[in-house]
Amino acid sequence: MLQNDLLLRTLRGERTERPPVWLMRQAGRILPEYRKIRSEVSGFKELVSSPQLAAEVTIQPVDILDVDAAIIFSDILVIPEAMGLDYELVEKVGPRFPRTIKSKQDVSALITGTAAAEQLDYVYQAVSLTKKELKDRVPLIGFAGAPFTLLAYMVEGKGSKTFSTARRLLYSDPQLAHTLLQKITETVISYLKQKVRAGVNVLQLFDSWSGVLDRKLYSEFGLRYIRQIVESVDDVPMIVFAKGAWFAQADFIDLKCALGIDWQTAPANARKIFGTDRVLQGNLDPACLLGDRERVSSDTRMMLEQFGPHHIANLGHGVYPMTPLENVHAFIAAVKSYRY
Amino acid sequence: MLQNDLLLRTLRGERTERPPVWLMRQAGRILPEYRKIRSEVSGFKELVSSPQLAAEVTIQPVDILDVDAAIIFSDILVIPEAMGLDYELVEKVGPRFPRTIKSKQDVSALITGTAAAEQLDYVYQAVSLTKKELKDRVPLIGFAGAPFTLLAYMVEGKGSKTFSTARRLLYSDPQLAHTLLQKITETVISYLKQKVRAGVNVLQLFDSWSGVLDRKLYSEFGLRYIRQIVESVDDVPMIVFAKGAWFAQADFIDLKCALGIDWQTAPANARKIFGTDRVLQGNLDPACLLGDRERVSSDTRMMLEQFGPHHIANLGHGVYPMTPLENVHAFIAAVKSYRY
Repeated sequence: MLQNDLLLRTLRGERTERPPVWLMRQAGRILPEYRKIRSEVSGFKELVSSPQLAAEVTIQPVDILDVDAAIIFSDILVIPEAMGLDYELVEKVGPRFPRTIKSKQDVSALITGTAAAEQLDYVYQAVSLTKKELKDRVPLIGFAGAPFTLLAYMVEGKGSKTFSTARRLLYSDPQLAHTLLQKITETVISYLKQKVRAGVNVLQLFDSWSGVLDRKLYSEFGLRYIRQIVESVDDVPMIVFAKGAWFAQADFIDLKCALGIDWQTAPANARKIFGTDRVLQGNLDPACLLGDRERVSSDTRMMLEQFGPHHIANLGHGVYPMTPLENVHAFIAAVKSYRY
Repeated sequence: MLQNDLLLRTLRGERTERPPVWLMRQAGRILPEYRKIRSEVSGFKELVSSPQLAAEVTIQPVDILDVDAAIIFSDILVIPEAMGLDYELVEKVGPRFPRTIKSKQDVSALITGTAAAEQLDYVYQAVSLTKKELKDRVPLIGFAGAPFTLLAYMVEGKGSKTFSTARRLLYSDPQLAHTLLQKITETVISYLKQKVRAGVNVLQLFDSWSGVLDRKLYSEFGLRYIRQIVESVDDVPMIVFAKGAWFAQADFIDLKCALGIDWQTAPANARKIFGTDRVLQGNLDPACLLGDRERVSSDTRMMLEQFGPHHIANLGHGVYPMTPLENVHAFIAAVKSYRY
């Protein structure tokens, strides 16, 4: 049904002629066409909450970059918001939560599961509209933040290098942390199921802050909830990206999903841990795309060589906003001209 | 000569009765006595640049916490400043460099080596004064930022989660990056040698941002310069702490120094990589000290058990300012009551 089903075939475990390619944050500030639309609205959140605009910027990279997948333009923080914690996005600073989770009462007051996920109708509308306007050219990826990362923002109230306030909760009141994580997990599950119903073909779970934990804590407060999600939402293939969680790699082996790999993990090492048949996604250093074009092409080819088949070409993190567009094109071209 | 030479004996490779203990950032906001002095001056930089005040806050944790070592109160950014890049410390935001390194001309204009290190006389005075006032109770540790971390600040101009502007330089102009790193390295070497002359007994090198690189980049732009420093400054034992550089651990094996271990690395894994005789420092999760006291004691004992001898007890990163003092005491007490 899809004109380009390279990503889906790869995720089904098939051997394809070349890896599919897309970039985390491909719909965003790297594109002049995105910046134009962004400059005409009041802020990022207006883009996220308007199905028509979200669909438009979601499709831009398919038109302009010719990537093999679209990813719905949204934000992982729509889940905390739907659960009752509003957030603001402060320009050049990041997210800010005026209220944070401090007590049992705060956790009890949260809206949970279907009741929370139902409030995100604008996302499902954006998905439906995007699917319609994409006309089956490429698959559409839906996503959510993983429970620990969402807890981190809900407790910390903002971005942080250490998320020490959030980590304090895991030590000072592990039971409350579990209650909160379970509520987040149920909401994420309901949210992802509704995204699938609205039409997404693939799901990605972003655990952006897993790297601030260690193996034991991540097993207890991170992976346990990711496992629930992976086992509950099995209608479409899922990619789990636990950034910085190198210490927990062995614990991901038996999880039934594809895995995102950050740029710190050498492809050959990832293959040693996960085997040649596991579908892995990543992992070119996004800073490589800030240098010269020839280096982008040669580093990309080297990465493809090292991952081998069963690989989704991507960066090891979101593309940086200051990336020259010609380097993004060079990255994509290097993948598209590659043959196994 | 020193009344308590436990740290020195451990660093010499001797088997001691128990591990020595100190905490990164022990001289700082966890102590009410520090906060009092801090409130009476115009800012952090006034404390750093006043030998009398720096000596006073350096000794506070020896008096109050009874740790086995003092570490001179200073900042890694005094080196960029001495090289010609002033910085400001913005409350609750972090360091800001009004001018950054953008071009070959910027690098050429830097003061380098002895000429730069000579400007840090206030640090050597602080060291001499501290030594005098410490009356040989415990060893005094001097420190510097590792070259890559200093480059990161000098190019980025501020703290960052990704240091993408700094990493861009490694891809866009590796030669300029090397010229800058060599200048930083020569300055750090001269600086550390003068600190030793002023009286420090041990040195620590902080590579706080090594974790944003990968193994290849770290080998070329990080470790190579650390090696120069370790080989040039061999008058006193050195501890190198490359935070987050798990991917480069194997490359540290042959370096002649003790190694700091972050909390993401399980002690048993560190022992597997570095062997039972290598002196390792760390690595309790600093967030553990934000929880309850019993947990601090039991997690500390577990860590000591797993490291075994040839270990310097410390946290896996700097102690968080919001840490309850009773938990700091509990951490130190757990180490002091431990016997191999």
